[in-house]
Amino acid sequence: MIEELDKKYEELSKKQKRNIFLNRYLIEDALIPMAKKLGIELEELIDIILEKYDFCSCYEIHAYAEQAKMGCLGRKVDIDLGLCWLSDFFSLIDRKEADKIRKLVVEKTVLYKVPYKDSLKEGREKVIKALRGKE
Amino acid sequence: MIEELDKKYEELSKKQKRNIFLNRYLIEDALIPMAKKLGIELEELIDIILEKYDFCSCYEIHAYAEQAKMGCLGRKVDIDLGLCWLSDFFSLIDRKEADKIRKLVVEKTVLYKVPYKDSLKEGREKVIKALRGKE
Repeated sequence: MIEELDKKYEELSKKQKRNIFLNRYLIEDALIPMAKKLGIELEELIDIILEKYDFCSCYEIHAYAEQAKMGCLGRKVDIDLGLCWLSDFFSLIDRKEADKIRKLVVEKTVLYKVPYKDSLKEGREKVIKALRGKE
Repeated sequence: MIEELDKKYEELSKKQKRNIFLNRYLIEDALIPMAKKLGIELEELIDIILEKYDFCSCYEIHAYAEQAKMGCLGRKVDIDLGLCWLSDFFSLIDRKEADKIRKLVVEKTVLYKVPYKDSLKEGREKVIKALRGKE
């Protein structure tokens, strides 16, 4: 009897957590791309999160996702513009300048909804200008 | 006359710096991918570096390139496996475990010359295992 109640409680709590944390933005911006990268089903990823997260984390996941969107895109920009090589290791571009360019591409893409390809193109032009400019 | 000598000296010094820093590995592993990412000619990139670097940096560039190869690939792995989202922001994978997976992919690729795609596949399997494992 107690076991049955436990099971029912668990199911209910999972459903409640699911309701708290799932919304269209989270699914489209975070979960679908993540599941694709991993090559697993979206439903499995959701189940994994529901098992690991308590109610509090289910509320907070939207804040995590907002932070991740900016933070992780910044790292992608580093790779796509070669800033990691050019600035961090080869010191051909000043770190502050690299930070500015990375921020520009991230903000254009995330806040102003410019397609990533176009923001990146603008960033690339700024990188080339910084490289060509005499120091 | 002095101007002419200056010009000659500059040309000679540029040629010497070029001899010091250019080798096949640097060109193939660093300069060609960098020029491609930026969409500029390889020769222009070499000229930019020669203008910015003194003799000392021209000797050191090979060490920078070795460090960059490992360091920047690590960041690429973060993006390609979604570790940035999964570990740093969503805390679904322990940071130490994420570090281990990143290191594995980088070392396989750089030190053991396994094609990146294959190292990444192994890393992806480890990410999925870490996600599925109960904590």
